[in-house]
Amino acid sequence: MTRVLIILILPILVKGLFCDILSYMIIGIDLGGTKILTAVADKNGKVLASVKLDTQARLGPKKVLENLKKSVMLALDKANVPLSRITRIGVGAPGPIIGQGVIVSPPNLPGWKKVDLKKKLEKMFRKKVVVENDANAAALAEHRFGAGKGSDNILYITISTGIGGGLIISGRIYRGSYGVAGEIGHMVVLPEGPRCKCGNYGCLEAIASGPAIARFAGQKDALAAEIAARKGNKKAIDSIKRAGKYAGIGIANANNLLDLDMIVIGGGVANMGELLFSPIREWAKRCSMSIFRKHIKIVPAKLKTNVGVMGAIAICLESDE
Amino acid sequence: MTRVLIILILPILVKGLFCDILSYMIIGIDLGGTKILTAVADKNGKVLASVKLDTQARLGPKKVLENLKKSVMLALDKANVPLSRITRIGVGAPGPIIGQGVIVSPPNLPGWKKVDLKKKLEKMFRKKVVVENDANAAALAEHRFGAGKGSDNILYITISTGIGGGLIISGRIYRGSYGVAGEIGHMVVLPEGPRCKCGNYGCLEAIASGPAIARFAGQKDALAAEIAARKGNKKAIDSIKRAGKYAGIGIANANNLLDLDMIVIGGGVANMGELLFSPIREWAKRCSMSIFRKHIKIVPAKLKTNVGVMGAIAICLESDE
Repeated sequence: MTRVLIILILPILVKGLFCDILSYMIIGIDLGGTKILTAVADKNGKVLASVKLDTQARLGPKKVLENLKKSVMLALDKANVPLSRITRIGVGAPGPIIGQGVIVSPPNLPGWKKVDLKKKLEKMFRKKVVVENDANAAALAEHRFGAGKGSDNILYITISTGIGGGLIISGRIYRGSYGVAGEIGHMVVLPEGPRCKCGNYGCLEAIASGPAIARFAGQKDALAAEIAARKGNKKAIDSIKRAGKYAGIGIANANNLLDLDMIVIGGGVANMGELLFSPIREWAKRCSMSIFRKHIKIVPAKLKTNVGVMGAIAICLESDE
Repeated sequence: MTRVLIILILPILVKGLFCDILSYMIIGIDLGGTKILTAVADKNGKVLASVKLDTQARLGPKKVLENLKKSVMLALDKANVPLSRITRIGVGAPGPIIGQGVIVSPPNLPGWKKVDLKKKLEKMFRKKVVVENDANAAALAEHRFGAGKGSDNILYITISTGIGGGLIISGRIYRGSYGVAGEIGHMVVLPEGPRCKCGNYGCLEAIASGPAIARFAGQKDALAAEIAARKGNKKAIDSIKRAGKYAGIGIANANNLLDLDMIVIGGGVANMGELLFSPIREWAKRCSMSIFRKHIKIVPAKLKTNVGVMGAIAICLESDE
């Protein structure tokens, strides 16, 4: 009788064990200055549940870490998945990040002076944690799930308060020799141009970021500049065209150097659509070498507010391969 | 008696066979517009013998191919190595090169309209042939044997009649999506600047190449400009400083984007030394992000006239790995 039971139960046990191994889960965390977005996903990157919490950044690292823990627990609960099923946790965090995941004083996380986020989260959850800067994570998300699907060499540019970037080379994040590659925002496109926050003159960020567009347009922010431009305000139109021109030059420069499959542009300012993309494309073509002029591909990002969390999921999947 | 002979001879035969396999040889060819430089090297890249012949480019592809064959035979003869010992032939050739080795109308090889050099040489020698554009080959040579030894991420720039470049990413040639990566010469560093041969305005090549330096200096060539500058001629000094400034800006732009180990500068104009390197370094530092400012490394190429042939040898070795 016992033998019969064992014979009946054993295959079910083995199958159950196998299913568990096969259907491992991952967690992606988008740690931003205002919100923490946490998602539980399966091994294909399909999101099962997600949770959004306030970062409460001004309360310092300890509180933010508490909120990170809370968001993970809430997301697991919502997905009805036990922590034991999770094999890996990916985090997209504001840079600069040194080493494997040490956060070094990002402007929007006050009090984070050399916080080893990877180590802290690994201790907290007893899982392997992968930390990546948010621009690289977003680049990988667009490569894996968004506009860059199927393309191996991609430059992702985010245009918002600043201008950041991430590079996918041969299908993987390219981090560079010191872990900070992709900074197209500080490409000098207009020597003797306006001063940038970085201290240099004529950086792309000083001409084409949201605040730069607003300033040249004489508007309070980029959205106001966009609205004014749509109403025909010449100063606002000129400011956006100017931003597009220099972004186009910067993109052509990067593409002449890197011979990319495509350039994907995200970030709040990119939501202006053709108003900005049209001068970008015009100038990128104009400044491209003839061999690239026909096929240079500049497209808007596909993933919107969830690009960060999808990036965190993508870095989990990449670190598995 | 026969058995005794076999027993005596067999180990010698086996050893001979093994040595031959272990000590395979390669051939590197630097195909230039004026000279063909061909070398026989061992599996460590050590040159055993080399031969220099006139390309006779104006006599067309057929004659050039004859000269290539002649140079290989002469080099083998000089090295006292039979063709059977050669496993691979590497060729550094003027770009653009499409596919695996089709030469498409390089300016200094008249009559070469889509010549499949790889196929022709493979048929000629019955060996595997690897063809690479000369800037990539030079970049790999500096990485493997020159100033970039031990560094994984390198931009190699050659400043002469034009400005070309090659990228080593993670220790290998980065060719890009269409096989033409590395074109830093056509980075726009001064919008509305002087017109470039490529049709655009303000490319680095239009400001910092040999002919551009000569033109701004009011001299017949870059060497005359250098001599005039050393004698204190203000116009010549200014022209070289200007070239260095914009080359420095272009290098900072590339480094901000790619976070490199080093930038290696070769080509005839780079022989000016500190006269040119000093403003390059000054402006590259000035336009670098603060994180790079301290350690950005800009060095002269170590390999001189043999950079091409060493590159051809290096691509043989790379294709073996």
